[in-house]
Amino acid sequence: MVWCSGWRLASAVSNHGGLGLIGAGSMHPETLREHIQKTKLATDKPFGVNIPLFYPELDTILNIIAEEKVPIVFTSAGSPKKFTAWLKERRIIVAHVIASSAFALKCEEAGVDAIVAEGFEAGGHNGKEETTTMTLIPAVRKGTSLPLMAAGGIGTGGALLAAMALGADGVQIGSRFAISEESSAHPDFKKLVTGLNEGDTKLALKKVGPVRLIKNDFFQAVNKLEQEGADGAVLSALLGRGRAKKGMFEGDLDEGELEIGQVSSIINEVLPVETIMKNLLQEYRQAKLKMNTSPFEF
Amino acid sequence: MVWCSGWRLASAVSNHGGLGLIGAGSMHPETLREHIQKTKLATDKPFGVNIPLFYPELDTILNIIAEEKVPIVFTSAGSPKKFTAWLKERRIIVAHVIASSAFALKCEEAGVDAIVAEGFEAGGHNGKEETTTMTLIPAVRKGTSLPLMAAGGIGTGGALLAAMALGADGVQIGSRFAISEESSAHPDFKKLVTGLNEGDTKLALKKVGPVRLIKNDFFQAVNKLEQEGADGAVLSALLGRGRAKKGMFEGDLDEGELEIGQVSSIINEVLPVETIMKNLLQEYRQAKLKMNTSPFEF
Repeated sequence: MVWCSGWRLASAVSNHGGLGLIGAGSMHPETLREHIQKTKLATDKPFGVNIPLFYPELDTILNIIAEEKVPIVFTSAGSPKKFTAWLKERRIIVAHVIASSAFALKCEEAGVDAIVAEGFEAGGHNGKEETTTMTLIPAVRKGTSLPLMAAGGIGTGGALLAAMALGADGVQIGSRFAISEESSAHPDFKKLVTGLNEGDTKLALKKVGPVRLIKNDFFQAVNKLEQEGADGAVLSALLGRGRAKKGMFEGDLDEGELEIGQVSSIINEVLPVETIMKNLLQEYRQAKLKMNTSPFEF
Repeated sequence: MVWCSGWRLASAVSNHGGLGLIGAGSMHPETLREHIQKTKLATDKPFGVNIPLFYPELDTILNIIAEEKVPIVFTSAGSPKKFTAWLKERRIIVAHVIASSAFALKCEEAGVDAIVAEGFEAGGHNGKEETTTMTLIPAVRKGTSLPLMAAGGIGTGGALLAAMALGADGVQIGSRFAISEESSAHPDFKKLVTGLNEGDTKLALKKVGPVRLIKNDFFQAVNKLEQEGADGAVLSALLGRGRAKKGMFEGDLDEGELEIGQVSSIINEVLPVETIMKNLLQEYRQAKLKMNTSPFEF
């Protein structure tokens, strides 16, 4: 959710019945502080911050989290053993994002409060094993009794219901909110996403850190190198710095890095968070009713 | 289901409440006839035959299907427009396997009776778009009102329920039955699969025809070539003929082509079809009860 989830999106989600998350991954420390403070002004509901653990100024970020009394932190892209204890000592609730059931036990050992399990179809935090949400959730559920949120491919109320059927206790939704009115992504990026079809994204940069990209010019350059067997250093050099900002925040749809989940193929409108939440719950209830009244009973 | 689904598996599935399919893809025409005749002797329930439409002796196969009065045919790996009319004229029910919602309309136009939509996590028939079951089913459901079966990642009753939540009317289950007692796959292949973990399979041979393979020596050779950017001809030469038979039927676990779905990571036992069906339905009912009594209501 880099370049998408600032205080506007996070507070809107919290105000409309979800748990809004600020995506720290694309923010300088003082920018994050500003977004936390604005979120607190914009909602009196709980909210959280997502911190990718490869963040360069991690100590500064964590101190800001503590100083600003952020109630909930989602950590990702690193070991849950690193900072969970530190956060828990400060009475912060910790959820950790994993992409493989092998990490469920590590989360338990680290004292994590909840797990997000993210499938291959997601826009980011994808595992190298390429395990999809459908396969991952039952496997993680088998391995832990911790509260479990499913992520990857969740863009409709039907998918929310499906996640619960697979054994999740809730879901983490990215792409659908990345393309909301309150998302800080560039309007041209949002517009591009509403026109995507199946197959218009692909998991790329596995040797650097897997992300799902829209197949624009930049992706084609990456893909060409990957097809030719380029190593991580060559790919990192092509990626350079600030590619995601260039694409998702500044709207350079050709040369920017455009991250989004597979579920983007069924996102056809930029809607306000309130409508998205209403639709999700309405679809969820409809799907549940349909399921409970289906003539195809087993 | 090549080398797995002969008359034993197909009749067992039909006898225990499913629709058993004979996998014609790995059979010479007269072998298929024998399996059809044996299936008819072993069950009085409906059954079907799956025909990959790239099959070299397709006309011969189709004539056998008609002569033997096979009630149901699942076609895959080709256009539904090719043979649906011919089959329908002979009062055969036709289901067609797709991996992209764009083909749903083509299925409707061709007069297909039902659609199987197969996700990236499946063991075969995977689309080049890599769309996962979680993303694919809602998209196909949106595009057609035809009866819809979900495939890929369905190995538990929870996943069956999830497929229904996504909008499917039923499911097609491959891997779980490929590793049943009645499957004609080699015992060593079945044993290998029961020990697999997440990440032990990978979608390969996209330039030839995508299949999901266990990461054995043969896969590593394929993968090395693919990482180096080898073209389809080079990969076809490595693949040669009879690789799947060598691996799945003859039990050469190093040099054979070993196809299986991602869901293999949660298949830990070789069970009889009767037990598999009982478990699936019991898990389905449990998941549904849990869903309807969950404290996490929306």
